[in-house]
Amino acid sequence: MIDSNLIENIYKEDRRSIARAISIVETNNSFTSEYLKEIHKKVGNAYRIGITGPPGAGKSTITNQLTKFYRKQNKKVGIIAVDPTSPFTGGALLGDRVRMTDIGMDSGVFIRSMATRGSLGGLSKKAIDAADVLDAAGFDLIIFETVGVGQSELDIAQAADTTIVVLVPESGDSVQAMKAGLMEIADFFVLNKSDRPGSQQAYTALQTILMIKDHDENSWLPNIIKSVASENSGIDDIANEIERHKSYMREKNRFQSKRDHQAKVRIKEIVEHKLKDELWSETGENSLISSLEKVVLGNFSPYLIAEEIIENFKNRI
Amino acid sequence: MIDSNLIENIYKEDRRSIARAISIVETNNSFTSEYLKEIHKKVGNAYRIGITGPPGAGKSTITNQLTKFYRKQNKKVGIIAVDPTSPFTGGALLGDRVRMTDIGMDSGVFIRSMATRGSLGGLSKKAIDAADVLDAAGFDLIIFETVGVGQSELDIAQAADTTIVVLVPESGDSVQAMKAGLMEIADFFVLNKSDRPGSQQAYTALQTILMIKDHDENSWLPNIIKSVASENSGIDDIANEIERHKSYMREKNRFQSKRDHQAKVRIKEIVEHKLKDELWSETGENSLISSLEKVVLGNFSPYLIAEEIIENFKNRI
Repeated sequence: MIDSNLIENIYKEDRRSIARAISIVETNNSFTSEYLKEIHKKVGNAYRIGITGPPGAGKSTITNQLTKFYRKQNKKVGIIAVDPTSPFTGGALLGDRVRMTDIGMDSGVFIRSMATRGSLGGLSKKAIDAADVLDAAGFDLIIFETVGVGQSELDIAQAADTTIVVLVPESGDSVQAMKAGLMEIADFFVLNKSDRPGSQQAYTALQTILMIKDHDENSWLPNIIKSVASENSGIDDIANEIERHKSYMREKNRFQSKRDHQAKVRIKEIVEHKLKDELWSETGENSLISSLEKVVLGNFSPYLIAEEIIENFKNRI
Repeated sequence: MIDSNLIENIYKEDRRSIARAISIVETNNSFTSEYLKEIHKKVGNAYRIGITGPPGAGKSTITNQLTKFYRKQNKKVGIIAVDPTSPFTGGALLGDRVRMTDIGMDSGVFIRSMATRGSLGGLSKKAIDAADVLDAAGFDLIIFETVGVGQSELDIAQAADTTIVVLVPESGDSVQAMKAGLMEIADFFVLNKSDRPGSQQAYTALQTILMIKDHDENSWLPNIIKSVASENSGIDDIANEIERHKSYMREKNRFQSKRDHQAKVRIKEIVEHKLKDELWSETGENSLISSLEKVVLGNFSPYLIAEEIIENFKNRI
């Protein structure tokens, strides 16, 4: 049974209820779908921004400054931060410590960090589900902050209406970003720490790479915005560029077709998860275990046994 | 139709055929299972070593030195290297450039690098499939080299008979490794670059963490081996520790039960992949597309539509 009080309290922006709902969503049990189906009618009003890029580019700082910018306009901001590299980049997990003293006490801001460790996949599903909770709770903007080093992080970034790729003027960073698939997903770039030496060369290199990409006069050309986020410089330019992209998307139904595409990707992921749950339910697991006796004997390929399990599954459902 | 010449040539250790077979396996088309079922009877003789750890710990260097060590014993070595962070650690992709000039020309060594970018998941499946090809081709040792920052990299490391976690004496590195789940998978640790300052403290810290872990007198206690791989120091200690772990595993049937467990994990992954392929086959994709019209209308939750697609799928199979 879903708790209708919890849902009512989400709509009332009760922080503890929002936190609990996101935890339910993360657990991904049988209630998850019920809650998300229930709140769906309130979902769709928040504008979703994806911020990604390599470790150390300053994504957390930009997220914080951008949040403060929007708070001055009295907009409510939800932040979903995912960083799979944090154990080894040694930094504050998702910049949380900085964040907490900075914007964490503001009741118009809700921050959720997601660990990838120990998660049995489905990270982008969880992040998007959590965004739906914040959306239903009436947050005006939702920022997904991810480190662009894994497929699921790219998936999350692409679940946004506007995706920002943050780079720093390190030598070759733009070339690395291209290799990492970040060029394809950027609606615009932020060249952060642009007071560093080599900034102008990095800008030119990035511009050159962008010019090589195929485009026609009707297509959106990603801009490059310079910033020094730690000094709050360039944040209004970033906000303006988000607005410009938003206006562009609103023309010619682009916004709707992007959201339709995202819905399609998301439904696929939900279907796969649900089917996996059914597959390894008690009966499925038992059939697997009994098939495994054959592997112990060593005469059968795992591929052969997999085929047998699929046949069993098909007969069962 | 599978190419029986190709299979014969794999058994004859023809390098081009091995490379082609691994490419087929990576493509993951309908032939993949057929080839892997066919070669299965020749699989199971290679000893599999997993080497993982944070970026910059020296995994490639250790892999290279260990390979040279085994080559002196006339053992053939296959290397499967996976590095999802490489675009942003700026290094040689999987240490390939170093490797190529060092061991790459040796006909008793086969190196395969796997990109994670653009890969639609299933990385650990591909890596293990590729290891089967090398195993069938008669390689005595297979080394999986992965960066320990993602779930699939941990999965690969765990597909080995002996898993080595490489750390460096940076402050707090062992604590980070614990957070990252590396403590659970290590059969032993290598403290590389142990000529650096702070090495003894790092050793003690790691030892302390290991002592906290639950263990009884019968359980395997992970050792810590010091090395300076770039100077070829400690490599024989690493090889000895691999032998010691191998002997331990061979006692009391532990080796077989570990391989059984790995087979189970692998079969699960194969089943999920095959089912996903069927799910999104032409008919499945069409049913998805028609369901999507409802999303465009905005009245239905993605979770509701997902349930409908699953029903359709069940009726179809």
